[in-house]
Amino acid sequence: MIVCLSTVLVGSIAMKELEAQSNKSKPLVISEQGSFAVGGSVITKDGTFDVQNALKPEGQTLHGDHAYVFYQIPAKRKKMPLVFLHGAGQSKKTWESTPDGREGFQNIFLRKSYPVYLLDQPRRGMAGRTTKTATITNTPDEQFWFTQFRIGNYPNYFENVQFPRDEQSLAQFYRQMTPNTGPFDLKVISDAISALFDKIGGGVLVTHSQGGGPGWMTAVKSSNVKAIVAYEPYSSFLFPEGEVPASISSTGLFGALKGEAIPLADFLKLTKIPIVIYYGDNIADSPTAIWNKDHWRSGLEMARKWTDTINKHGGDASVVHLPSIGIKGNTHFPFSDLNNLEVADALSTWLKSKGLDK
Amino acid sequence: MIVCLSTVLVGSIAMKELEAQSNKSKPLVISEQGSFAVGGSVITKDGTFDVQNALKPEGQTLHGDHAYVFYQIPAKRKKMPLVFLHGAGQSKKTWESTPDGREGFQNIFLRKSYPVYLLDQPRRGMAGRTTKTATITNTPDEQFWFTQFRIGNYPNYFENVQFPRDEQSLAQFYRQMTPNTGPFDLKVISDAISALFDKIGGGVLVTHSQGGGPGWMTAVKSSNVKAIVAYEPYSSFLFPEGEVPASISSTGLFGALKGEAIPLADFLKLTKIPIVIYYGDNIADSPTAIWNKDHWRSGLEMARKWTDTINKHGGDASVVHLPSIGIKGNTHFPFSDLNNLEVADALSTWLKSKGLDK
Repeated sequence: MIVCLSTVLVGSIAMKELEAQSNKSKPLVISEQGSFAVGGSVITKDGTFDVQNALKPEGQTLHGDHAYVFYQIPAKRKKMPLVFLHGAGQSKKTWESTPDGREGFQNIFLRKSYPVYLLDQPRRGMAGRTTKTATITNTPDEQFWFTQFRIGNYPNYFENVQFPRDEQSLAQFYRQMTPNTGPFDLKVISDAISALFDKIGGGVLVTHSQGGGPGWMTAVKSSNVKAIVAYEPYSSFLFPEGEVPASISSTGLFGALKGEAIPLADFLKLTKIPIVIYYGDNIADSPTAIWNKDHWRSGLEMARKWTDTINKHGGDASVVHLPSIGIKGNTHFPFSDLNNLEVADALSTWLKSKGLDK
Repeated sequence: MIVCLSTVLVGSIAMKELEAQSNKSKPLVISEQGSFAVGGSVITKDGTFDVQNALKPEGQTLHGDHAYVFYQIPAKRKKMPLVFLHGAGQSKKTWESTPDGREGFQNIFLRKSYPVYLLDQPRRGMAGRTTKTATITNTPDEQFWFTQFRIGNYPNYFENVQFPRDEQSLAQFYRQMTPNTGPFDLKVISDAISALFDKIGGGVLVTHSQGGGPGWMTAVKSSNVKAIVAYEPYSSFLFPEGEVPASISSTGLFGALKGEAIPLADFLKLTKIPIVIYYGDNIADSPTAIWNKDHWRSGLEMARKWTDTINKHGGDASVVHLPSIGIKGNTHFPFSDLNNLEVADALSTWLKSKGLDK
């Protein structure tokens, strides 16, 4: 009885925290887990392979440009899997443990009974074999990323930022970056992810940042993409030919943001599925010289033009600016920020509202 | 009663298969899983970072040369975790699903109640950030690897080979390769793995092929390495200064195999822990012109000289040539071959014999 009383006394917010903690301490019950390559192509060097001169490339093959996939199916499972695609300079690590070692969306959504598929896109991470060559550089750039990803304006953290302030967490965040092993290629990436959806059947594609573009392209290619959730997409917004809006200029370091034209018939495929786009905090409401806040302002504005266009053509797309629903302080990585349980709950609610939680 | 009778009738071999199948269909119960970076270094570009010129490298940092680790702790756990390090051209995929989609050592040893830690070594896979530059090539070379890894002499499979013969499995095998994103560096790799052992405390290090060398180096650096299991190590066998044996010549495409000298005091650390080395099948007993069989003959011979030296200094090291204990047909990847449950059982028996299964 004493336990019950004290539980009541801590109030509803503390209750929520206690629930989250006790949830974390429950084991994950996984009926199946594994990994595989999907998609990709093969190049063959002219000539004939000679096993006595096996270091010569003639007649040999190279399989490359596939995606790598690690999947886990919970024992008590919902029907619809979530397929996670990282953004620029990232890998599936994006969705795993957070920089300060808490659970990321991989575990959080397993606990919510969703099967999860984590991708390394072609020419990234464990999907490194490539049919096109690349040079890996070692140019220091992390203070740029700190700022670009809206932790703050280096060396200052944004006052309300949901990012841990200890050095060790920041080092972990930097170390989760991993380079392209070949040129970034929208077609190659969306082909591989499309092949994944063909293999697993229906699923919800969850993208981050630069992953947004390949995400839309995948939904154009595969009717097995049943919904898209995009965290802070930037670039590669696809509009019907003749309906591309004017570029949006910004003081961001990548300049003006342009829409891209695709045939109307392709665009209309994006009107057949529910789509939600989330942006975090510390994004400008109107043009500003603070370049990171302005860069993402242009993204948010373009996303709104894009969802308007989708909906005008009969689709179901929405943009959620997280602060407007009371979720504040998020960086470019809302799913691994300090309040990622709250961010996940917002997604759960949306999935339920679209009947994707069965 | 009918069920009981028929179970008895299928005999003990079929019983074992049934057991394995029913084992596979049991869920994995995981008390904790996650990922992190460990080890590594930081480089800083001279100068001062200017947030208004954030694409200039001056004053910026780059964190690189860490290992990436994915870990899973089963709910019912043994004390001693297994830490898995891949070989050349591979990543942690080595230990996950097999090329034909069966369970690899990750799942098999989770089912045997061992915590598992899977590594991408520095400058490989998801640990791609590097302080040294590299060029990624796209030179076709897979018929070489088919032969080097003793699936057969391309295009012929070895008659008894424990590798699936369908095209899809071979493609998956090729696609699990992933390139170096920076120079291979024994010191960098063993430093990172040593940092992992310092973080997790005692564990058993399981290495493959080129991982053997960093494995020995890690045990020299960290007393938290409580045992080493090496599958088909080649190169970087460490001998005390003055005791390096003569090189072993072979018709293998990498020429003669040399031992490497380290101070006796360092070498003696390798005599304090149990070590077992496994080699598969289709390795020559004596010099031959068939270069793949001869390459691995030189490895097996050097391993025997090495364990003799360890044991002469009071250590506990053994070489197990799998065919000599009745396990036949294994390639360079015994842990993912068709008989990998049998290969895993041999390792379980060894771990038990050394008291590492508590």
